[in-house]
Amino acid sequence: MIFALLSGGSGKRLWPLSNDSRSKQFLKVLMNPNGHMESMVQRVWRQLDLTGLQDSVYVVTGQGQLEIVQNQLHDKVNVIVEPSRRDTFPAIALTATYLYSIVGVNLQEVIAVLPADPYADNDFFCKIAELESAIHESDADIALMGVKPTYPSEKYGYIIPTEGTSEGRKYEIVSHFREKPSEDQAKILLEEGALWNCGVFAFKLDYLINLLIEKGLPIQYEEMLKQYETLRNISFDFEVVERAQKIVVAKFNGIWKDLGTWNTLAEEISTPIIGKGIICENSVNTHLINELDIPVTVLGCPNLIVVTSPDGILVADKSSSPQIKELIKNMEQRPMFEERRWGRYRVLDYIKKDKCEILTKRIGIDAGKNLSYQLHTKRSEAWTVIEGVGEFILNDKMFHVQAGDVLQIPIRARHSIRAITDMEIIEVQSGSELIEEDIVRLYMDWNDIVAQTVR
Amino acid sequence: MIFALLSGGSGKRLWPLSNDSRSKQFLKVLMNPNGHMESMVQRVWRQLDLTGLQDSVYVVTGQGQLEIVQNQLHDKVNVIVEPSRRDTFPAIALTATYLYSIVGVNLQEVIAVLPADPYADNDFFCKIAELESAIHESDADIALMGVKPTYPSEKYGYIIPTEGTSEGRKYEIVSHFREKPSEDQAKILLEEGALWNCGVFAFKLDYLINLLIEKGLPIQYEEMLKQYETLRNISFDFEVVERAQKIVVAKFNGIWKDLGTWNTLAEEISTPIIGKGIICENSVNTHLINELDIPVTVLGCPNLIVVTSPDGILVADKSSSPQIKELIKNMEQRPMFEERRWGRYRVLDYIKKDKCEILTKRIGIDAGKNLSYQLHTKRSEAWTVIEGVGEFILNDKMFHVQAGDVLQIPIRARHSIRAITDMEIIEVQSGSELIEEDIVRLYMDWNDIVAQTVR
Repeated sequence: MIFALLSGGSGKRLWPLSNDSRSKQFLKVLMNPNGHMESMVQRVWRQLDLTGLQDSVYVVTGQGQLEIVQNQLHDKVNVIVEPSRRDTFPAIALTATYLYSIVGVNLQEVIAVLPADPYADNDFFCKIAELESAIHESDADIALMGVKPTYPSEKYGYIIPTEGTSEGRKYEIVSHFREKPSEDQAKILLEEGALWNCGVFAFKLDYLINLLIEKGLPIQYEEMLKQYETLRNISFDFEVVERAQKIVVAKFNGIWKDLGTWNTLAEEISTPIIGKGIICENSVNTHLINELDIPVTVLGCPNLIVVTSPDGILVADKSSSPQIKELIKNMEQRPMFEERRWGRYRVLDYIKKDKCEILTKRIGIDAGKNLSYQLHTKRSEAWTVIEGVGEFILNDKMFHVQAGDVLQIPIRARHSIRAITDMEIIEVQSGSELIEEDIVRLYMDWNDIVAQTVR
Repeated sequence: MIFALLSGGSGKRLWPLSNDSRSKQFLKVLMNPNGHMESMVQRVWRQLDLTGLQDSVYVVTGQGQLEIVQNQLHDKVNVIVEPSRRDTFPAIALTATYLYSIVGVNLQEVIAVLPADPYADNDFFCKIAELESAIHESDADIALMGVKPTYPSEKYGYIIPTEGTSEGRKYEIVSHFREKPSEDQAKILLEEGALWNCGVFAFKLDYLINLLIEKGLPIQYEEMLKQYETLRNISFDFEVVERAQKIVVAKFNGIWKDLGTWNTLAEEISTPIIGKGIICENSVNTHLINELDIPVTVLGCPNLIVVTSPDGILVADKSSSPQIKELIKNMEQRPMFEERRWGRYRVLDYIKKDKCEILTKRIGIDAGKNLSYQLHTKRSEAWTVIEGVGEFILNDKMFHVQAGDVLQIPIRARHSIRAITDMEIIEVQSGSELIEEDIVRLYMDWNDIVAQTVR
């Protein structure tokens, strides 16, 4: 059995912590059993490991999230990279072709697709593993997970099973679906035994490959990549599930939540304060998440969520917090912090005067990691090393550098740095256009250059 | 007539905008008639100018506020600098000796002392000017301004005039004083014609000089400076006013407010948003003052005051906001931004590792201004010029510098910079102890060094 974790998300729902490179599943706001903070995707990864399923996991994500996936999970995690951000049908189709034509997975293998960010207890993942036998026993096209509802929610989709199909079996046959009903309708659905659709699908690889052939779509990964842009931008639910002949659903009766908005997420944050700050006693049921170095004081404000990051500061009544996505949809802003394969950066300051832009960043590089060998065509950089030691390469020459050193990198100069110990650098970029995309990555054999330097 | 503006304040009541170097009178949160933001002290200065009184104004302040006074008012403003921060009696005694022994003011001259931050209409200042004739006509020791109360406030002091002393005169004789009465007591005081004490005192210089002689205190400025630390730390009200033989009070019937807390100040801020941010419609009566570059979104929160600065972020219900002073009294923090004679700086980043501290600042130097010639014993600095052109001096040699240049300043290196056009610099300090006090100011004749460089 193979697990495909879909890691997408536009990053607007949990502004200002989430942004285009760090959508909600990457926010480290949950506490793991050892008392450390972990993100939703790290929690799911840990839970898959507990159930012994981690080795057969593939993470499906966009280029923009590749480095944070590698940083948060593991350098060696299996990743399938979408060439552009699309809905779930294209993403799952790409996954199927990759497993079929690149990995060589057997067509009879069962694939389970799940979101990267369900907040559920460990049993949820054992239950997903049972979908394999449900597929084989039922001979259904698709097996779904249905969560037993705890209240008549208006925001979830519902799966309605056929009555009387579940005697002695681990699954029921699906009758039909219902998206986001009113509360009254939801109450009736609950009486009929309807289940919440939690976005988990299982199917034999064979089923999807045949479906692609039927639709005239490629089944070879390389060809699928080429045609990816032309695929209909549609969800797997609409394109596949709702048209399937036979669908079964396994019932999960445990904790499962979609922590998609600040009010739902705040319920699972174990401490009222993350980061620097104080909340005064008369501010009951208020949560503060402060990712800035600046202390926050909350005084006389109950039921608020206060969240700060270099991207923004949110002060919201919890019940109003779901509106944030709508509010900030037109707010265009470069990400002010990102996690990368080699570490992280944060923008400290930005000014624009006439045709010149200046950006000051603090960059953290983890010991043993290096930036790619690169040059920029529109900016020069000045780096002040403020912590650690490392090897700095400028135009194919290597220099040992340490805290206190100031490194000047002219426009078009080839440069890289490798951290020996954890390094922190203040970088001042000056140029006509300061965008992350102004980077030409060059091939370099680090050992060659080091060897030349030693000689 | 001479006006002494007392500019003190601990800076805690309007945290996080106010700090030890920028107390409330320097916050630019008020709108002037031209639509520009101005501070309370700038407003008072402008109002004194309207009444033609500006030339005879002396600002009495501490060393820590000297540069911001010069920056906000005028380089050439008359300033009397207290050697240490004391209460109003020592400050006014120092002022009297300065006027007497340094300026040579006639002993019959009337001195009016007023706080630097009353929020009042222009007539208030005309009324203060009338205290001169009140002193001469009444032959009183002291003349006060009393504001006609608009409600029975519990937070002000009251001046109770003697009944029936005001026929046809511009002043009344003071019977007694009452500090912060209960609301019921205040109602009775209002019926008795009591007035709010707004902290304005006028007296002949002669009166105060004689008082100092009586008390065995120096009347020469230089000697007063030496003994300043030994003076009782007591208010002018307690030490002088309440013991005077004859006091008169002039009644002011107009707008006067003490904007000492966020809820009172917010009433006078004409726009709900200062700085980057949005307040959603359902957040009625909420004010946002954002001094950071980070956008703030306020959602579903009525009656709040949200204030951000590099020093901190406050989210408070307006009615709770007066508690802030108490809450942050133990918060020790270096100022994260200051206005100086030559411009301003802001701390962008600070880290401490083992015995090393790193501080990143953005410094703005106004065209034509220069830093003092200085050296540091505990830190090196790296400057990246990000805007403007100027003259940089390092160990007595001058260099022309411009945007893009990186300047390294080792420990103990003598350095200075003069801005030709407005300059912005990113400064990274590294050292064992990063405090503003680690500065040795050196004598330098700029023209000499420039001349040597040209030769």
